[in-house]
Amino acid sequence: MDSLFRFSALAEKMQPSPIRELFKMIQRPGMISFAGGLPDPAAFPVSAFASCANVLERDGTKVLQYGASEGYEPLRAALFDLMQKPQALGYRPGAEELLITSGSQQAVDLVGRALLDPGDVVIVEAPTYPGTLHSLRNAGARFATIKCDGDGMCVEALPELIAAVERESGQRPKLIYSIPTFSNPSGACLSLGRRQRLLEIATKFNIPIFEDDPYGRLRFSGEAIPSIKSIAGDSPLVIYASSFSKILAPGVRVAWTVADPKLIRSMVMMRQGEDLCTSTVTQALVAEYCAKGLLESHLEHIISVYQTKSSAMQKALVEFIASESAEWHEPEGGFFFWLHLLGRNSDEVFHRAIEENIAFVPGHSFYPDHDEQVGPTNEGSQYARLCFTFANSNQITEGCQRLARVLVQGDKNP
Amino acid sequence: MDSLFRFSALAEKMQPSPIRELFKMIQRPGMISFAGGLPDPAAFPVSAFASCANVLERDGTKVLQYGASEGYEPLRAALFDLMQKPQALGYRPGAEELLITSGSQQAVDLVGRALLDPGDVVIVEAPTYPGTLHSLRNAGARFATIKCDGDGMCVEALPELIAAVERESGQRPKLIYSIPTFSNPSGACLSLGRRQRLLEIATKFNIPIFEDDPYGRLRFSGEAIPSIKSIAGDSPLVIYASSFSKILAPGVRVAWTVADPKLIRSMVMMRQGEDLCTSTVTQALVAEYCAKGLLESHLEHIISVYQTKSSAMQKALVEFIASESAEWHEPEGGFFFWLHLLGRNSDEVFHRAIEENIAFVPGHSFYPDHDEQVGPTNEGSQYARLCFTFANSNQITEGCQRLARVLVQGDKNP
Repeated sequence: MDSLFRFSALAEKMQPSPIRELFKMIQRPGMISFAGGLPDPAAFPVSAFASCANVLERDGTKVLQYGASEGYEPLRAALFDLMQKPQALGYRPGAEELLITSGSQQAVDLVGRALLDPGDVVIVEAPTYPGTLHSLRNAGARFATIKCDGDGMCVEALPELIAAVERESGQRPKLIYSIPTFSNPSGACLSLGRRQRLLEIATKFNIPIFEDDPYGRLRFSGEAIPSIKSIAGDSPLVIYASSFSKILAPGVRVAWTVADPKLIRSMVMMRQGEDLCTSTVTQALVAEYCAKGLLESHLEHIISVYQTKSSAMQKALVEFIASESAEWHEPEGGFFFWLHLLGRNSDEVFHRAIEENIAFVPGHSFYPDHDEQVGPTNEGSQYARLCFTFANSNQITEGCQRLARVLVQGDKNP
Repeated sequence: MDSLFRFSALAEKMQPSPIRELFKMIQRPGMISFAGGLPDPAAFPVSAFASCANVLERDGTKVLQYGASEGYEPLRAALFDLMQKPQALGYRPGAEELLITSGSQQAVDLVGRALLDPGDVVIVEAPTYPGTLHSLRNAGARFATIKCDGDGMCVEALPELIAAVERESGQRPKLIYSIPTFSNPSGACLSLGRRQRLLEIATKFNIPIFEDDPYGRLRFSGEAIPSIKSIAGDSPLVIYASSFSKILAPGVRVAWTVADPKLIRSMVMMRQGEDLCTSTVTQALVAEYCAKGLLESHLEHIISVYQTKSSAMQKALVEFIASESAEWHEPEGGFFFWLHLLGRNSDEVFHRAIEENIAFVPGHSFYPDHDEQVGPTNEGSQYARLCFTFANSNQITEGCQRLARVLVQGDKNP
């Protein structure tokens, strides 16, 4: 890499994130992007959030000082209340079970540092969130992938996968990572039956579950399903993480984790070598926003905005895309459509698509590389992730039309 | 550790930070604390900072969205200007040489991840900042310690230390970490001659230098000494990090690194698995603060406040502490006095001190553990770090009196 710096083995291996490389390609006028998993900036509560800045004056000497690694007390108080709601955990976590992090990306990172030695295996859904692969890769993880369908992770296949990993690597997987509610990228929700079965299997094999839940509150249709953490009750097996990124604003970089006190203590120790604490400034602003009771009405607003956009994408896809070209499930919440491009390679489709000024994320980005998978490998070359939250309704319709043109014109057998 | 979680080897080894444990012991009424390295909360620019919140309304849709991992553009612009000042680097870094991080703790963490494989050796000053030891320990580092005197690191001993490390470990140290200006904890400044010699040695052995400079702008007496980075000119050997924590407010968690583009790119990749980006909310507030021209006048203000406090501590120490009990150099800036408690164990003194309601940090906290040192070991059992910035002037005088009582009463040979 360089004669001056002797980089670590990890750094030598690390590739620029394919998604970030892709984002550079789509920064041009006229491009309609379904690529980034970004909230609608027009729906940000700009004035309401700015009005919380009085806390910077009122509590300035506290807010500007170093904060506790566990989080800023007024925000912790707001989160205990938030977690108590039936749509969240339905109970108030203990004080030692809560950690505020700088985005839930950091929660994955800290759990990786606390639990993983290089070479350890983590079970992830195929497909899964690439940022998690990146975080756990930083901790030296290898990945076993479990297939998903319209009801999320195919949990019945877990025991066989665990056995395959044990045969191949001589060790039991250390962690099961899941986005059970409105998965990124698939949009799927793990059914209640599967959640219960997942818990049984995890308990039997004594493997903790990381339940990543940034989208859980963003349901606009269908029946709510309890979080795995709330089903688990007293069991310390489930590590629950959520975030203000999708329900308020990613720019605050405030998220939280509820987990067993022993694990929280270990995460706290790791983060003291990483960033000491999350900005008290943003924590105070978010705490003020919650204390003013603004969060619930904002949630109502964005759920309605996202429902409209999701419906617009569903309508446009049905109208423009031939049924022999693609299949998908209409999401009931979250941010994404996950298209199966029948018989097509989504990388090839992507390159044609950006010529037509329409962008999405090709499916392979949501799978570990082949050489870091243990057990049966999975890959998503026929899939495409379409984010419906960022573009406006006209762009959604126009973008789906463009995509349809690409799918019609393209070579079926590249 | 637990039958449920199988923790990583790192987590099993990790101990709660001794400094944080100590902070729990000193949370009681009547305690005067010289322990925490905290800015004076009474000197925070509360109203001026709060007045910058108009940016949350004005640029809300950008500020609330995800930001670039490299940093928020308006703050990057402010930092290019700040770095150009003669008191900083004296030149404008290239766009690819700058990275904004969530505190400079994160800069150390990212450099550790980019450069270190487990077992790699980093040369650190004895004494050094414990947070850096913690970060680099997270990356699996071992430490070689180089002695310091009133002029900072004894650089002439470096070639011999490097040779000793190579003999003992079979490898060349990967990095030299230094706080050359107003060291934490020693308060010392590396002399110009030693800075030049350090660069020569680092160049000869091809070992990058991490120049950690959170205190450089806080000089209240003596002649300014150019940063190592600015002396290095075109050489990419020096990684320079500074922070808004001590010159504005730690609560913003905003710092920055200037380094070779290849290293910056690697740090960016690492941080995409760690926290994606620093909060755009705090970056925008800090950028606005800088754009309004408030930083320089605030610096003048706190330099004057800290000069007064430093003088008060110097006066009180001279007045109350017998010359046979302790030796120290009066600092010319920064946050700390570093007392050599002659013939005394500072842990023993510490426990007596907290009974007298006066707290400091015992010296051993600023040295790696014996079992993680490579080459000749160093330890600081006769030293004490006294922070003069947090307490007010009356507390400083009273605290030094209490400390003097402890030193007189204590057993010289525990």
